[in-house]
Amino acid sequence: MDIGALLTSAGINIAVCVVLLSLYSILRKQPSNDSVYFMRRLISEKIKPDPLGLERLVPSASWIVRAWQATDEDVLVAGGVDALVFLRIVVFSIRIFIIAAVICVFLVLPVNYYGQEMQHKKIGAESLEVFTIGNVKEGSIWFWVHCLALYVISCSACVLLYFEYKSITKMRLAHITGSPVNPSHFTVLVRGIPWSRDHSYSETVEQFFSTYYPASYVSHQMVYRASRVDKLMKDAEKMCRMLKTIELQNRESYMPSCLSGGTTHSFTSLNIKPESFKSKTSNSDGLQPSQTDKERSAAFVFFRTRYDAVVAAQVLQSSNPMLWVTQLAPEPNDVYWSNLSIPYKQVWLRRIATLLGAIVFMFLFLVPVTFVQGLTQLDQLRQTFPFLRGILKQKFMNQLVTGYLPSVILMLFMYAVPPTMMLFSTIEGVVSRSERKKSACIKVLYFTIWNVFFVNVLSGSIIRQLSVFSSVKDIPTQLAKAVPTQATFFTTYVLTSGWASLSCEVIQLFPFLCNWFKKFIPRTQEEPCSSSALTFPHHTEIPRLLLFGLLGFTCSIMAPLILPFLLVYFFLSFLVYRNQILNVYVPEYESGGLFWPIVHNTTIFSLVLTQVIALGVFGIKRSPVASGFIIPLIFLTLLFNEYCRQRFSPVFKRSPAQVLIEKDRQEENLGRGEEIYKLLRTSYCQFPLLCPDLSISQDPSTSQDSMPGNSGQKKDHESSKDPESPNPGMILVLTGSRLLSL
Amino acid sequence: MDIGALLTSAGINIAVCVVLLSLYSILRKQPSNDSVYFMRRLISEKIKPDPLGLERLVPSASWIVRAWQATDEDVLVAGGVDALVFLRIVVFSIRIFIIAAVICVFLVLPVNYYGQEMQHKKIGAESLEVFTIGNVKEGSIWFWVHCLALYVISCSACVLLYFEYKSITKMRLAHITGSPVNPSHFTVLVRGIPWSRDHSYSETVEQFFSTYYPASYVSHQMVYRASRVDKLMKDAEKMCRMLKTIELQNRESYMPSCLSGGTTHSFTSLNIKPESFKSKTSNSDGLQPSQTDKERSAAFVFFRTRYDAVVAAQVLQSSNPMLWVTQLAPEPNDVYWSNLSIPYKQVWLRRIATLLGAIVFMFLFLVPVTFVQGLTQLDQLRQTFPFLRGILKQKFMNQLVTGYLPSVILMLFMYAVPPTMMLFSTIEGVVSRSERKKSACIKVLYFTIWNVFFVNVLSGSIIRQLSVFSSVKDIPTQLAKAVPTQATFFTTYVLTSGWASLSCEVIQLFPFLCNWFKKFIPRTQEEPCSSSALTFPHHTEIPRLLLFGLLGFTCSIMAPLILPFLLVYFFLSFLVYRNQILNVYVPEYESGGLFWPIVHNTTIFSLVLTQVIALGVFGIKRSPVASGFIIPLIFLTLLFNEYCRQRFSPVFKRSPAQVLIEKDRQEENLGRGEEIYKLLRTSYCQFPLLCPDLSISQDPSTSQDSMPGNSGQKKDHESSKDPESPNPGMILVLTGSRLLSL
Repeated sequence: MDIGALLTSAGINIAVCVVLLSLYSILRKQPSNDSVYFMRRLISEKIKPDPLGLERLVPSASWIVRAWQATDEDVLVAGGVDALVFLRIVVFSIRIFIIAAVICVFLVLPVNYYGQEMQHKKIGAESLEVFTIGNVKEGSIWFWVHCLALYVISCSACVLLYFEYKSITKMRLAHITGSPVNPSHFTVLVRGIPWSRDHSYSETVEQFFSTYYPASYVSHQMVYRASRVDKLMKDAEKMCRMLKTIELQNRESYMPSCLSGGTTHSFTSLNIKPESFKSKTSNSDGLQPSQTDKERSAAFVFFRTRYDAVVAAQVLQSSNPMLWVTQLAPEPNDVYWSNLSIPYKQVWLRRIATLLGAIVFMFLFLVPVTFVQGLTQLDQLRQTFPFLRGILKQKFMNQLVTGYLPSVILMLFMYAVPPTMMLFSTIEGVVSRSERKKSACIKVLYFTIWNVFFVNVLSGSIIRQLSVFSSVKDIPTQLAKAVPTQATFFTTYVLTSGWASLSCEVIQLFPFLCNWFKKFIPRTQEEPCSSSALTFPHHTEIPRLLLFGLLGFTCSIMAPLILPFLLVYFFLSFLVYRNQILNVYVPEYESGGLFWPIVHNTTIFSLVLTQVIALGVFGIKRSPVASGFIIPLIFLTLLFNEYCRQRFSPVFKRSPAQVLIEKDRQEENLGRGEEIYKLLRTSYCQFPLLCPDLSISQDPSTSQDSMPGNSGQKKDHESSKDPESPNPGMILVLTGSRLLSL
Repeated sequence: MDIGALLTSAGINIAVCVVLLSLYSILRKQPSNDSVYFMRRLISEKIKPDPLGLERLVPSASWIVRAWQATDEDVLVAGGVDALVFLRIVVFSIRIFIIAAVICVFLVLPVNYYGQEMQHKKIGAESLEVFTIGNVKEGSIWFWVHCLALYVISCSACVLLYFEYKSITKMRLAHITGSPVNPSHFTVLVRGIPWSRDHSYSETVEQFFSTYYPASYVSHQMVYRASRVDKLMKDAEKMCRMLKTIELQNRESYMPSCLSGGTTHSFTSLNIKPESFKSKTSNSDGLQPSQTDKERSAAFVFFRTRYDAVVAAQVLQSSNPMLWVTQLAPEPNDVYWSNLSIPYKQVWLRRIATLLGAIVFMFLFLVPVTFVQGLTQLDQLRQTFPFLRGILKQKFMNQLVTGYLPSVILMLFMYAVPPTMMLFSTIEGVVSRSERKKSACIKVLYFTIWNVFFVNVLSGSIIRQLSVFSSVKDIPTQLAKAVPTQATFFTTYVLTSGWASLSCEVIQLFPFLCNWFKKFIPRTQEEPCSSSALTFPHHTEIPRLLLFGLLGFTCSIMAPLILPFLLVYFFLSFLVYRNQILNVYVPEYESGGLFWPIVHNTTIFSLVLTQVIALGVFGIKRSPVASGFIIPLIFLTLLFNEYCRQRFSPVFKRSPAQVLIEKDRQEENLGRGEEIYKLLRTSYCQFPLLCPDLSISQDPSTSQDSMPGNSGQKKDHESSKDPESPNPGMILVLTGSRLLSL
């Protein structure tokens, strides 16, 4: 591939990007698309942008300006810590690759270009290989330039990483202390509650925690098995909401709100009288026997203070570590309820099974990747498919096939990966949606790095790859041989997969089409609500950014031409993701920056890999001095990583007591205890329809219970299930006839 | 090597063993050797065995009978949990190798022997190779016997391991709950105390813990830098004790006890008046300014209950994880004081440095091992050293060189390893002697397995080894080729290193010689005291047992002839170690069975390695069915290991809250709080001479302070340093003249 082909590819991609971004700037101005492009604003700020008349049809760059002008505080408010951490990845990448680009383009590129005494062609027709380290002759004294460049890049990356880690740690702590009362900080998720013949799970939990944590235990809430009735009820709720929408649309209120129990149609909502509940209760929890049967061996246990919750979560409870397994509870919106029913004993088995599944999937994926790899080697293609020779002789087709097609095919295949990995993570048995995303993120990351980077670098056929892997010692040499030659492919991959994916991201093709179809089926049009909103897809976007980071590092001194394209990608992604976070994605839950350690570790991995490849290259090029200088660099990088692991990572695993105790005391002084306990009692709600919203409508008389003392607790605890509370559980009975007619 | 040579080797070793054990049975009856062979009894039971007249010179087996008759309770009382756990390793090995021996000798051995149609020689002249799996012809249908044997051995090993792990976990818990009050359960070791300009470290600690743990914090004790004066004082103390012994020997008390301050000679012990201390105090701790300077950033912090201590130890204290690092304190006797002065920030660096050091040491050791390996291949030896040909032609010399010499040389080299690894573990910065031993144990274990097993199996030359390791895929095949042929060497290794090491162990050569020399230098004779007593050398004995376990497993179905010898070794070691635990070693500290997870993991490793080798062998022997049956076995073994890791290992890392809280309440009901606090204040004593022994001589009036409330704590805390207490610090001043004349 020569410069011309690369520019063709770049041209196509720039054109595609410009078209898509312009299209986006028009589409976003159409009020009918608000639910696609302004979902977050619609939900949280309730603001609908005004229609703008004729201006609606003219593309503009106003969204770029707005995304640029937004401050970090805006992002934090709009997307939470996780969104800000995500943007820090982009900012870090921009910073480090500006440094790398300056050094590599002005220092390394000339050395590569004039590395051999040769007749240079016109720059346009020059092969890309001339710009790689492969062009420097063996034993050249100029390798110190590469070595120096690598030192500068590694050191600046480490310094930048250190400050990012430090500031994100601070951000995480500020998230714990600064946030408004978060019920998850007071709550511990208990799994593996032992089964007993005499007591229900609920009684066992109460007994255990009031025995061992008498001063700090407030109350608890069991997890129930979701039965068919519950699922039916969920469907009914959905249906009901739909009908409500139609009702509103028709602007006639002949149809009374279905939840209030109408008579004109066959929806009947039974307001079950508290007394009927009470008469049937067989235990202190006010639960029916059937409900006791439905209890699972998991519960949310509420504590008086944050510190108490952290202690209960971090201490080993029982002498059998498979029982009374505690961890800090996820946020209420973050809970993945259906996985809570999984017995804790199964979890480790599931984890192993999904790990194996993911590995098998990773290797099965080699088939399409190998096919793609074949496309970049035209000669091979011509030999395999002789009938293509005619087409491939045309210059444009040639450039298209080598420069564009492979990465498009790869990209399409790659779209299937995140949902698969998400499925694996679901089966794994994680208890929160953020954890599921994190687990999927790690899987997608390994997958991407393996299948895009290593397989492309080392490929040929599957068999050759495996034989490559059987000789550990030769890996640096193998990589050193392959990376510079594959740099072309990676450059085009940045152009196609990178730039194009950003355009796709901003245009939100799938939600846009859904929205468009909905217009033809008016009944399914809904009010904007959080259930239809999208959360930020960390599990696809973080691996992508990190992959480009890896490509950037490994190619930096080998084939510096990739860097300008990469920088454009990162700049564009900075704007696009900011825009998306501000306008589209709804932050339903928060992991508090838990993604950063993954990013840190991957960056260190990329750096060390780059250094190992450089070691291999200097070995091949017979420059022992340069090789000698690289070895301490590898060692220092690993040492830096170990330092960061010691210095920062514990905060991402456990919450520091000092911070929590201070926050607790602060709130105690403000006398907010009452308020918090009320919030706790209502926040974790498995079946939204059945949950009495105590925080809004609770009788003032019941909220006066004083906190201290053991008896007070029990009272609290029971009042959370108090059948007398004015918002009792409702059961919606659907008579099927009307349903069918819909 | 043929059966004859093996029997020669066995004969030599049996003779050596019988001689040494008989010698031992005589030596132990000599009263002058009591301090060598009955150290534990002398210290803990104060019993001196009676001289027996003429019987003293006749060898007897009474010690074997006594060791056999001792119950587990006796062992527990004599040696603690760690000793019992050690004996469980031996018992486990005996059990599993009885099963393996029965199956392999009666099932596998005949299959191997008749595996090929061949003319068998007389059994005595039969080569050992005939008894290995190498003798079974390719594609034989009889491999199902090996496969079955491996299944039986693996399954019984897993079942036995499970029950051992379970019972040791119980033992550990019983150790926590059943033991008399152990100050270490109430104490947290804090490192990384932040330095502040305004406060001493002691004040900072008090401030921190009385702020964040007001209800549970009792007091604390700083760690001081050991200055030259302290070292001088320690020497002086030693000297003093020595003089005291001489005094007692001379049976004349013309020399007053040096500690009471005599006048007849130039030892002067200054009883520094409490007032003089008091007048100089500049801070609340009652410390002199110089003493404040000597404070290190580490302290022992005492808590009210066990649970409080565990919480403080398990929770992350500060938002900077390098500050306020807490862990449960080691037992007072277990503390390795000089390492406590190491700043916590250095610890991770030291750990990496020692790891690298240990790896380098491991590879440097290849040189002698390679030399030893050469000796077993006689032909090679003859070629290298032609002048040896004459000697080697003699049959006896031949057998001696191939059967005996290599493992003796190896054994001698191996004696240098444990002290080196102990040194590495000391440099590592561990805070307790048991932890140091555990860390050294792991290092010695890796070292032994690598240098005895792998290097011997894969050797030839160093270069060939490295090239073996560069091809990961071929490892099973390589091992499969090498292990059966090396089985001869391993069998002789069991005979020499195993049996002989037990004889050496029981005879305690080095202490015996020391004791013997002491007789000629009467002044250095000391009263039996714990400082000269030996603690059980877990770090040398556990790796040895595990190595023999590994050899047993890997050779079991390949070369079953090793098993009877191995069983003899384990039986003998059962008797010898029991005897040693009951009579010789003094249990100064206790890790509570922390060695077991190492044993468990190594045994699993041995099993999986055996299975992988079997896979390789079946591959070479073209028995795909047998190979196919091995793969699920490997998977199941790993799964079992993972289950045990989930089920048991957390208890070895963290103490379960439930157990601790119950124990705390029990003691609270008994009203033992006072007693415990008193014990706490005196138990951690860095400079024994300076430590006031409050528990014995404290004024009754000061021990009446009531516990509850914050002010009470402060009082406790200060009273631990109370200058008014009747046993003030003493400084012993040595005037050099007398010292020189000694």
